Amino acid sequence: MAPSATLVDEPLSIQPKKAIKGPHPLDPLSPAEIASVSQILRAAFPDHKVIFRVITLAEPPKALLAPYLQAERANQIRPKIPRKAFCQYYLNDRQQFHQVEVDIDTGKLSSREELPGKHSYTDAEEGTKAEAGCLAEPTVQAALKQLDLPENAVVVVEPWTYAPDGLEDMSQRIIMCYLHMRLSPHKDANHFAYPLDICAQMNAEYQVTKVFTLPSAESDRMVEWTGTGKKFDRRKIHSSSEYHPDLQKERRTTTTPYQVVQPEGPSFHIEGNLINWEKWRLKVGFNYREGLTIHDVTYDGRELFYRLSLSEMFVPYGDPRSPYPRKAAFDLGNNGAGVNANNLQLGCDCLGTIKYFDAYHHTLSGDPFCLPNVVCCHEQDDGILWKHTNFRTNNAVVTHSRILVLQTIITVNNYEYIFAFHFNQAAEISYEVQATGIVSTNLIDIGDSATSGTVVALGVLAPFHQHLFSLRIDPAIDGHKNSLLVEESYAIPYKDPVFHNPAGIGYTTQETFIEHEMPLDTDVTKARVFKMVNENVLSPVNGAPVGYKLVPHNSQMLLAHPDSLHAKRSEFGAHAVWVTRYHDKELYASGQHTMQSPGGEDGVRSLIQSRKEGVRDEDIVIWHTFGTTHNPRTEESPVMPTEKMMVSLKPVNFFTRNPAIDVAISNQLTNKSVLVTDVSCTGCT
Amino acid sequence: MAPSATLVDEPLSIQPKKAIKGPHPLDPLSPAEIASVSQILRAAFPDHKVIFRVITLAEPPKALLAPYLQAERANQIRPKIPRKAFCQYYLNDRQQFHQVEVDIDTGKLSSREELPGKHSYTDAEEGTKAEAGCLAEPTVQAALKQLDLPENAVVVVEPWTYAPDGLEDMSQRIIMCYLHMRLSPHKDANHFAYPLDICAQMNAEYQVTKVFTLPSAESDRMVEWTGTGKKFDRRKIHSSSEYHPDLQKERRTTTTPYQVVQPEGPSFHIEGNLINWEKWRLKVGFNYREGLTIHDVTYDGRELFYRLSLSEMFVPYGDPRSPYPRKAAFDLGNNGAGVNANNLQLGCDCLGTIKYFDAYHHTLSGDPFCLPNVVCCHEQDDGILWKHTNFRTNNAVVTHSRILVLQTIITVNNYEYIFAFHFNQAAEISYEVQATGIVSTNLIDIGDSATSGTVVALGVLAPFHQHLFSLRIDPAIDGHKNSLLVEESYAIPYKDPVFHNPAGIGYTTQETFIEHEMPLDTDVTKARVFKMVNENVLSPVNGAPVGYKLVPHNSQMLLAHPDSLHAKRSEFGAHAVWVTRYHDKELYASGQHTMQSPGGEDGVRSLIQSRKEGVRDEDIVIWHTFGTTHNPRTEESPVMPTEKMMVSLKPVNFFTRNPAIDVAISNQLTNKSVLVTDVSCTGCT
Repeated sequence: MAPSATLVDEPLSIQPKKAIKGPHPLDPLSPAEIASVSQILRAAFPDHKVIFRVITLAEPPKALLAPYLQAERANQIRPKIPRKAFCQYYLNDRQQFHQVEVDIDTGKLSSREELPGKHSYTDAEEGTKAEAGCLAEPTVQAALKQLDLPENAVVVVEPWTYAPDGLEDMSQRIIMCYLHMRLSPHKDANHFAYPLDICAQMNAEYQVTKVFTLPSAESDRMVEWTGTGKKFDRRKIHSSSEYHPDLQKERRTTTTPYQVVQPEGPSFHIEGNLINWEKWRLKVGFNYREGLTIHDVTYDGRELFYRLSLSEMFVPYGDPRSPYPRKAAFDLGNNGAGVNANNLQLGCDCLGTIKYFDAYHHTLSGDPFCLPNVVCCHEQDDGILWKHTNFRTNNAVVTHSRILVLQTIITVNNYEYIFAFHFNQAAEISYEVQATGIVSTNLIDIGDSATSGTVVALGVLAPFHQHLFSLRIDPAIDGHKNSLLVEESYAIPYKDPVFHNPAGIGYTTQETFIEHEMPLDTDVTKARVFKMVNENVLSPVNGAPVGYKLVPHNSQMLLAHPDSLHAKRSEFGAHAVWVTRYHDKELYASGQHTMQSPGGEDGVRSLIQSRKEGVRDEDIVIWHTFGTTHNPRTEESPVMPTEKMMVSLKPVNFFTRNPAIDVAISNQLTNKSVLVTDVSCTGCT
Repeated sequence: MAPSATLVDEPLSIQPKKAIKGPHPLDPLSPAEIASVSQILRAAFPDHKVIFRVITLAEPPKALLAPYLQAERANQIRPKIPRKAFCQYYLNDRQQFHQVEVDIDTGKLSSREELPGKHSYTDAEEGTKAEAGCLAEPTVQAALKQLDLPENAVVVVEPWTYAPDGLEDMSQRIIMCYLHMRLSPHKDANHFAYPLDICAQMNAEYQVTKVFTLPSAESDRMVEWTGTGKKFDRRKIHSSSEYHPDLQKERRTTTTPYQVVQPEGPSFHIEGNLINWEKWRLKVGFNYREGLTIHDVTYDGRELFYRLSLSEMFVPYGDPRSPYPRKAAFDLGNNGAGVNANNLQLGCDCLGTIKYFDAYHHTLSGDPFCLPNVVCCHEQDDGILWKHTNFRTNNAVVTHSRILVLQTIITVNNYEYIFAFHFNQAAEISYEVQATGIVSTNLIDIGDSATSGTVVALGVLAPFHQHLFSLRIDPAIDGHKNSLLVEESYAIPYKDPVFHNPAGIGYTTQETFIEHEMPLDTDVTKARVFKMVNENVLSPVNGAPVGYKLVPHNSQMLLAHPDSLHAKRSEFGAHAVWVTRYHDKELYASGQHTMQSPGGEDGVRSLIQSRKEGVRDEDIVIWHTFGTTHNPRTEESPVMPTEKMMVSLKPVNFFTRNPAIDVAISNQLTNKSVLVTDVSCTGCT
């Protein structure tokens, strides 16, 4: 995003504004800064070729940034903070994989580290080269020929990162190429409708090392292709799996237009990456890996959250037959939610009055380029906010809920994910994830059944899989010293000696402070609630520590066996809530490196196992694991309607009363609804 | 709702339409019919005074109605069905409480039943008389005088139905009067801010039988008032608990207008109570008790649901101290979701292009009157429906989700509940419940703490309570013979002899058909899914029985002890899912009579205990219990921001592919979104 001029605002009546030029410490790197950093690094390694994998903002340590943000909000002099970039690069070849920090102002390098055995994330170029290398490989061509595909077949390769399955040396980069075909010359014809019988394993140089026949009715595992095999079963040819409007001609004409109009413009105010809206003040961040991040969230001047982000996501497939255990995606660590963010289109993706944010990424040569419209910001009506009618007078008082939506959409091969933060006028935040796009497909013989998948079209198996997300919540509830308080509701025993409870209907709550870093589970049967509180700030109304509760999205946790590589590598999927002590740079629930990682290093479980620090009245971080066990249904083919998951953060005894009590009363003069009197239906029965 | 002329639609090309005059069997009674029925009943008891408690449509037996509906949808001759009213009335006095069915065409009475020991629901007149009787009572006046209230105090009575607590004869109608006061002459000043120290118990003749001092720091139970007690603590006087805009002056001016415009009108077509929208076809019903009901739901001509309704709701308070166990509301059976439905206001409650439905109720004399605007119908944009971008071509295809909302709002004393059915273009249905309004308040001494409540304002305790709802789902998945299939996802053991699973990552599903009527629980740890299927109709794609899955709202179940009257009387709160065999008239999860009921008669648990009929490939009914354990927070005072709960019904292998594949592609020409370029913020920091 473009760097903003940060203004020091003296109270308006005293002095005029003085501008401090230069980026805000949380502003992503500008194109000029990206170019500068790559220049600095090339100069540092004059006899080498530097291949830039990551050039991104190194967010300042909290010890420097928190006081900066506080001073900024209080209109005081801000301390000077070094502005640094975090870089990962290859020196000449993939074997020399390094990282370093670069001070943008001084050009000084620091924290340089070699990363032997680690792998950089994948990218579009790797996918393209993998596809080309695969299709050019003679063995692959022979195998395709043996399949005897229809004449109009165009073979398409879906390249996958390799999730270690114990069968290969994970220190060597591997790409799995799953072959599909389309039977139309149209470049958006749905090749997922025709998963083919073979796949290819490829090395980092885009050379195919093995070609396999995939499991089928005859074999419950992949088998190296040796020259023979089944032909493509032409009974599988069908036409109902297209989604592109050029090929899926049936189109409803029944849906009348629906427009959102804001005649006075939106209620939000934006300066650079700073958003002010309905007493909310927050900063929008963006980086190649996490995509959209939210910083320095306050409501009515009170601190709430230092940082909110999706810290990782893991999508493991549950088909046990090789090579399918290799399908387990870390869409942030392996692919990057930032680099894969869609270019959102006005009126297509986004309805209403829309503000877009751009981002910048860089080529392998370190040249910056724009990722336009990666985040959209707009308001939405969310129905009624609060209402009451006094039955004695029949006077109704009602307010409508206006929410602020900050949204981004990523495409990771077949899948799309929509990530949105919602803010409402009652000081509540929601994080909504929606899955859409195309379910991953493997082949299945006609008439065969599957124990770990659903047949969604002729010869098309959609394997069972899970989507697990880790929402990282760095609370700053009225300050940085917080605690995690777990509340449960339980029935008071009948005729309890203390509570008496003669009618047997009483219930009360048990509250437990969490003392040390640990994992926790949700438990709906106990109405378990997780509250992030500040024990040093008590509600003037009832003396409870002010807080925000996490309203989790209750989900099944990771099904893969705890000893499996999936479990070891993902780490966060074992439990619904993790609480850690804050440490700089601990941002990723599965650790810094996920690509062909062994796990057990710096994911959230490993961090805890290695230390168990105190989290009582400390600077803490909450990681919420949620998602869905996705056993596909035919309705999800060829593209799936969005599956929604929502997590909320709500104030608990933080405010002395409803923070939305002052929202304007809903009225027809402003809202201009239209009364429908006649929508009679000629021809309806 | 106004009776509709039902048209027989021959295919348009063959014959012109012929109208069959007369109401549809599912049309609620018209005003003329209500008047006719009351006339018939008065004539049947010429020497008596008939006090009409209920005059409502007796929905026809399914054996008659289902063939009728099928014929109607198929444009065939419809069988004639008797049209009957169901009535409950007093003959002269409350002791003679009867019910009967009246054939509207013939005037014949049938199914007449005396209801000794049963109580009719409460209504506004009872509340008004209770308040008057309470305030007129000398003991109450003496107790109020002893409280030494401020001069400007206006005492207000909150009348409550009596939830039996074992201390009174439940066959005698009791009203509990909780006294509050307001300190402003404004009639909408919030009296819930000042719960007073006394309450009164009253009989059916509005005579106060006892006056109690409520529990406080001194006593953990109510004590009969004998002349002395504490004075009202004037330190409790505060001004922050007002919600009415005349008294809560602070009002945001930051929220700019947001309007929804449908320049070509809405996409729905409505004839009487028949709605056609985006391949959905359904009928809207309404009655005094359940409020909004949905009937005969089909999508693209295929049967889905015979009937959807809120069958009951139970709101028990968890404060064990007498008299608070008496606070446990059955807002349908005791109060009526229909009679308490709000008169929805264009542009206040409802945003966009709105169609309203009216309903009719009747006076105690049997005279019909209108309940206007009790149900609103409108479209809403619900974000993205499905999207995919082919990364090779960068061609994005995206559709927006348009939903149809049918909504009603009820006010039951302090609380408001918003009930809405949402239908989307992917053939999914959601049922959303929102709680708002004012949390019930009891007094608490300043400085005292509570174990079963939250202090939300000075001297104001909001007791812990639960909201439990029972959604009654009468499926007709491609016909009336359905089964309930429970699916769970479980990890395949490492190195399983059948599946092998060498990587330890595989998982599969276990499916169990439910054979007999029984209760079931949700279990998120097993990703337990409840599918209503038709075993006689198999998916042509994968051979699975076509179905719809219930996506439950996972909730804590009833906390009251299983032996308590709360548990016995509510019945449905014990488990999340109940499946029963269909029987006519079994509509209410806690039974026909809830007012001061003993329980154990005809609630869903009793029905099952008494028979355990088969539900495999039968006409079945699913009852989903969901809700929230509500431990109030200060942010919910003086009115609470809506707390949302949502249940969904989604097709599973019912369609051969995504039923929304043909939705119009989202485009700017139609959607007319507006790009924001400058919303800079003068004065923002």
